[in-house]
Amino acid sequence: MYEPKPEHHFTFGLWTVGNTGRDPFGHATRAVMSAPYLVEKLAQLGAYGVNLHDNDLIPIDASSSERDRIVTEFKQALVDNGLKVPMATTNLFSDPIFKDGAFTSADARVRAYALQKTMHSMDLGVELGAETYVFWGGREGSEVDAGNKTLDGLRYFRDALNFLCQYSQDMGYGLKFALEPKPNEPRGDIYLPTVGAMLGFIATLEQPAHFGVNPEVAHDTMAGLNFPHAVAQAIDAGKLFHIDLNDQKPGRFDQDLRFGAESLKANFFLVKLLEDTGYSGMKHFDAHALRTEDEAGVWDFARGCMRTYLILQEKVERYNADPEIQAALAQYVVSDPTLEQLGQKYSSENARALKAMTFDRETLGQRGMGLEQLDQMTVELIMGVR
Amino acid sequence: MYEPKPEHHFTFGLWTVGNTGRDPFGHATRAVMSAPYLVEKLAQLGAYGVNLHDNDLIPIDASSSERDRIVTEFKQALVDNGLKVPMATTNLFSDPIFKDGAFTSADARVRAYALQKTMHSMDLGVELGAETYVFWGGREGSEVDAGNKTLDGLRYFRDALNFLCQYSQDMGYGLKFALEPKPNEPRGDIYLPTVGAMLGFIATLEQPAHFGVNPEVAHDTMAGLNFPHAVAQAIDAGKLFHIDLNDQKPGRFDQDLRFGAESLKANFFLVKLLEDTGYSGMKHFDAHALRTEDEAGVWDFARGCMRTYLILQEKVERYNADPEIQAALAQYVVSDPTLEQLGQKYSSENARALKAMTFDRETLGQRGMGLEQLDQMTVELIMGVR
Amino acid sequence: MYEPKPEHHFTFGLWTVGNTGRDPFGHATRAVMSAPYLVEKLAQLGAYGVNLHDNDLIPIDASSSERDRIVTEFKQALVDNGLKVPMATTNLFSDPIFKDGAFTSADARVRAYALQKTMHSMDLGVELGAETYVFWGGREGSEVDAGNKTLDGLRYFRDALNFLCQYSQDMGYGLKFALEPKPNEPRGDIYLPTVGAMLGFIATLEQPAHFGVNPEVAHDTMAGLNFPHAVAQAIDAGKLFHIDLNDQKPGRFDQDLRFGAESLKANFFLVKLLEDTGYSGMKHFDAHALRTEDEAGVWDFARGCMRTYLILQEKVERYNADPEIQAALAQYVVSDPTLEQLGQKYSSENARALKAMTFDRETLGQRGMGLEQLDQMTVELIMGVR
Amino acid sequence: MYEPKPEHHFTFGLWTVGNTGRDPFGHATRAVMSAPYLVEKLAQLGAYGVNLHDNDLIPIDASSSERDRIVTEFKQALVDNGLKVPMATTNLFSDPIFKDGAFTSADARVRAYALQKTMHSMDLGVELGAETYVFWGGREGSEVDAGNKTLDGLRYFRDALNFLCQYSQDMGYGLKFALEPKPNEPRGDIYLPTVGAMLGFIATLEQPAHFGVNPEVAHDTMAGLNFPHAVAQAIDAGKLFHIDLNDQKPGRFDQDLRFGAESLKANFFLVKLLEDTGYSGMKHFDAHALRTEDEAGVWDFARGCMRTYLILQEKVERYNADPEIQAALAQYVVSDPTLEQLGQKYSSENARALKAMTFDRETLGQRGMGLEQLDQMTVELIMGVR
Repeated sequence: MYEPKPEHHFTFGLWTVGNTGRDPFGHATRAVMSAPYLVEKLAQLGAYGVNLHDNDLIPIDASSSERDRIVTEFKQALVDNGLKVPMATTNLFSDPIFKDGAFTSADARVRAYALQKTMHSMDLGVELGAETYVFWGGREGSEVDAGNKTLDGLRYFRDALNFLCQYSQDMGYGLKFALEPKPNEPRGDIYLPTVGAMLGFIATLEQPAHFGVNPEVAHDTMAGLNFPHAVAQAIDAGKLFHIDLNDQKPGRFDQDLRFGAESLKANFFLVKLLEDTGYSGMKHFDAHALRTEDEAGVWDFARGCMRTYLILQEKVERYNADPEIQAALAQYVVSDPTLEQLGQKYSSENARALKAMTFDRETLGQRGMGLEQLDQMTVELIMGVR
Repeated sequence: MYEPKPEHHFTFGLWTVGNTGRDPFGHATRAVMSAPYLVEKLAQLGAYGVNLHDNDLIPIDASSSERDRIVTEFKQALVDNGLKVPMATTNLFSDPIFKDGAFTSADARVRAYALQKTMHSMDLGVELGAETYVFWGGREGSEVDAGNKTLDGLRYFRDALNFLCQYSQDMGYGLKFALEPKPNEPRGDIYLPTVGAMLGFIATLEQPAHFGVNPEVAHDTMAGLNFPHAVAQAIDAGKLFHIDLNDQKPGRFDQDLRFGAESLKANFFLVKLLEDTGYSGMKHFDAHALRTEDEAGVWDFARGCMRTYLILQEKVERYNADPEIQAALAQYVVSDPTLEQLGQKYSSENARALKAMTFDRETLGQRGMGLEQLDQMTVELIMGVR
Repeated sequence: MYEPKPEHHFTFGLWTVGNTGRDPFGHATRAVMSAPYLVEKLAQLGAYGVNLHDNDLIPIDASSSERDRIVTEFKQALVDNGLKVPMATTNLFSDPIFKDGAFTSADARVRAYALQKTMHSMDLGVELGAETYVFWGGREGSEVDAGNKTLDGLRYFRDALNFLCQYSQDMGYGLKFALEPKPNEPRGDIYLPTVGAMLGFIATLEQPAHFGVNPEVAHDTMAGLNFPHAVAQAIDAGKLFHIDLNDQKPGRFDQDLRFGAESLKANFFLVKLLEDTGYSGMKHFDAHALRTEDEAGVWDFARGCMRTYLILQEKVERYNADPEIQAALAQYVVSDPTLEQLGQKYSSENARALKAMTFDRETLGQRGMGLEQLDQMTVELIMGVR
Repeated sequence: MYEPKPEHHFTFGLWTVGNTGRDPFGHATRAVMSAPYLVEKLAQLGAYGVNLHDNDLIPIDASSSERDRIVTEFKQALVDNGLKVPMATTNLFSDPIFKDGAFTSADARVRAYALQKTMHSMDLGVELGAETYVFWGGREGSEVDAGNKTLDGLRYFRDALNFLCQYSQDMGYGLKFALEPKPNEPRGDIYLPTVGAMLGFIATLEQPAHFGVNPEVAHDTMAGLNFPHAVAQAIDAGKLFHIDLNDQKPGRFDQDLRFGAESLKANFFLVKLLEDTGYSGMKHFDAHALRTEDEAGVWDFARGCMRTYLILQEKVERYNADPEIQAALAQYVVSDPTLEQLGQKYSSENARALKAMTFDRETLGQRGMGLEQLDQMTVELIMGVR
């Protein structure tokens, strides 16, 4: 029970289990582990796949032959361990060249280099089997707006995405692009900071159908926003292409905690949303072990992420099957076919009919919604006491 | 100097200068002032117009003849004082009937009533001359997601907006609709909580061209988001239909402070964005005097909002004319026509050429951006010492 | 099981179950219930006591005979239902007179009135049997610091507390005073905003021994602070005199949610802290039913608060008895009696000995703390799957 | 004008101007500069002193002779450039040994090592002339409370401070200890997270008179708290021993922005508080240049910090001399010698007299405070238009 298996489509980034514990105030606390070793361990734990930035695998200054050797070894490890690479992405944030933006840099040379680097990284991703390509614009933002760049930045960003979408088509890659928002860190403010903002931006692209979002629990949560609501908007728009699961306390630095380590209730509703709507994409854990841990702690962390998902998934099934909860939900919803028909589709007649109607405002205002009871039942279900 | 005049297009809501100082922990501290009196005072102060919710003017249970009498008096006051009503909106939040949502209520009768009320309110707004119609869904959200309503809520909301857009066309109203997001309060979490989320939602409507946004300084700021960035995204998308100016400290309840009372730097960049892009819409102050104030304080507040805008506007002109600042900005931007041409529009050749290029990554990474200097000059300009 | 009984020392405020659902954007959604009725209902639910502000019971402008009649009826209800009044407090925030502060008003007359009102309220509290007197300074703060009042405000506040402490002694009341901090709302910023700030302030009072704190879950949580840490500091200082249990999402308006409605993990650690340290004071639920609820929802809310406490209390017992968890905790702690003795109490010899010691810094730095495993076990225990 | 001079007592940390721009997502963007070079540059810019952690100057694994050589060179640089070292502190956060706490580690060996390291660092600080010793417990906290350590942690922390205070006395160092709180980062939650919490903790120490606080603008601001209020509490308690000036947007990672880069109004009130109360300690800029900057940007940053302080200081003088502002302030305050005498010092007679008094509650509640006008004048003064 709660045993992760490949069919659950759990994935981890090389950078997640490979995180060495460095932070702004401290040095690494764990040794580097090789990519093939990480692949082997993830497969043993029951993961489906492993995702990567180009430079998680290949150093930014690797020669062509080094690259090829590394890729060959990595592919062999994938084959040996039956692990997939469903998603790839570009590191456009670590190198000093990107310190003021990659696609949105004020320097045309940096923007061109970012395009080049991303094309190479797409080539790599596709070579490894990736079908989804994620864009997280870690440096696309600002600390101070004195550079007067925001509007240009949005335009540059759009140009880059339009270009790369065509590149994918031209090369026959057929990649799905998933944009990943984050409100801040490492920049003071990152452009297009929320799931909603990315959905808004997609509408301005040349080929919006190829673009969706990659929401991350920690990111909208950093800004104190309701993450299940953000994911629901993405689902409503048909744009949930990928998801990054982890956890976070609101209003502070990016913690990338183990999935379910903090927000049990929000994560229950998140899993419910994914399961109820039949989300079939990857469930990617973009998180890392606490800096206090050694290698054993890293695998505790990885196991914990997957177990907690499966525990919550089972709780969702119970919720959906709980007769008292379902009765309360049924009572919560009031249908009225006549009124619903009038309001759903506009016609002059419908408008006139609705305007002429009489509503008993006071009585309707007195109805109790039963949400305290429903919420208490939910909390007790999450705590395993019903 | 800094004297507000009608051509500045400053507007106030009836509910703003009319706010009586009631809050969750305290009773009203100021007496109610009549709508015609507010109109007279705003005109004296140099405002262009006054905006309203239906129930700011007409009690929710007014008889038809009462309504007509009130409207007649109000129109007379507008004429007498030369004030316009450029924007109207619906109160879908005060009455208990809306306690669990208006357009997104789980009760079909409430949704139908919300449609009816909004059509009547649109009729009123148009009668008073409004060209923009704002939707702020104060109760469209939840405290607990146990009601399992988010996806239905988004669908209901879309149905309502599609319906009302057609109503406007059918009646020949030609209204522009401006959606106003807010992350929370009065609900624990409000659906579509940010400017970005509203832009994303508009893309799912039947007639997106009729819909734009009404960003409010305090709202994205409550979630700690960069408000000028949000407005820039709206401008970039051609969707800035209206704007609500006020101020707010991040991470707390909705303060609706006097414009410029808190975030001088962010508001400087906001005014710069509006002025530099030639925003010609209304500059609406959706704020109110501190609860500590009597009526004199209310007019100090209203005067202060407009003065601070004009002061910041003058500072923007200085910034744009400051040779040292402009030189630093010019140095910040690095153009490269060849590279820009390659990256702007996709072709196989361009992609190949970009991929084959050599970049001096280290040198590009060493370039200093000069942003500390640029930002210090900006701060000194805001403080009036350059 | 999970059945609240008087010996659990659960209490509610009259203002909590009596809350009518009014909020800044909406009217009351529930009718007023009389104090005797609330007493009867709370007793039926298993509460130990009921707390009150003076004006929860007695209108601010009641005549002396009205007051006496109300008190007599209320006492009778307490006797009839076997309910206690363990804590009382003063409403120094609703009336317009307090709009710019009560004890910290810039107006000497308001400060004097606040003292008078508090003495009367202390008389009432003691008459009803209260042993703890809470100070929540809802209006002791500011929106703008232009009034230049902060330092004076702190001095005025101290003067008032010193005065009232002596009044309690002079009258033979023997009250314990519990100061309740809140970071903001209804003021933009409230003085002494955190549990820590109150502890710091107590150290500046004339008779600090009579003063402790009344931490409220929602209050430090609004500022994103770790509430169990704050309570631990109060316990460490011997200053946890009372506690307000409820729930809250960080970084937004004061929600006063049902205890356990949001932060299951933090509340588990809170209950653990209270139970492990043998806290014997009142467990007061300072919260209210969602505005969406009718009277039935109010009692669902009240029952839910108490049930969730008892559920968490049982989980704490399990945690303390879980051999795997206890083994992991034992491994987490490394004792070294020699080193501990050297460091615990200063002497020149100890200092010298410590300075001369050699530590294997690298080996100590490599130790894994096992916190991912410990935390995962805790989360699974909270979710009832171990 | 606005020219920093040594008598202004501006100081920088070696780690501030020496920051290389590394962040959690990116590599260093600037080269390391030697300590003597930094000393020379700071002196040229007009600073009074330079502060340091032990390992800013001396590598953690330096041999005794290396240490001596480095110290000799550094002292020479101080002498050559006329710079002081007024404050020193210990790096108890970078090395992996401190990953789960230094003074509060669950491992007695780590606690002992932290004591040892701090004694050595105090020796170094005193050798360099430091009179203030700062404690910032960057790792004294937790991400998960499953380790059950909070109460022990507070006890360990107190033991360490008591020990080190005696060490200072025993060695004749006469150091003043300044505790520096921070709510989070690098730990998920740091113990004693606010200025208030530190003041509360000091009251539990053996020799509280030797301990004060070192508030940092960014730290309380990260939690959205009002920083001038926190500093006022420290001043009120006689505990403002040192101050760290920088800037920060609330609710996000630690930005360490240039002083005045963000919160012009709050920083105006902060400078006003320091100048009005005659603060004579060091004004230490604990900040760093944006990662986008090269070395020239570092000096722009340092100059900007000092200039902005001097600009704000001049504005404070103007505020204090502005007759209209002073008149409004005078009107804001209402004295009443009789009432003030009754309330200031307790006696049975005073209590009786106050209780018998009649107040005109309604009239007092109607008084307008004039804070909108006062605040607008303040904002205009900050913007240099009055």
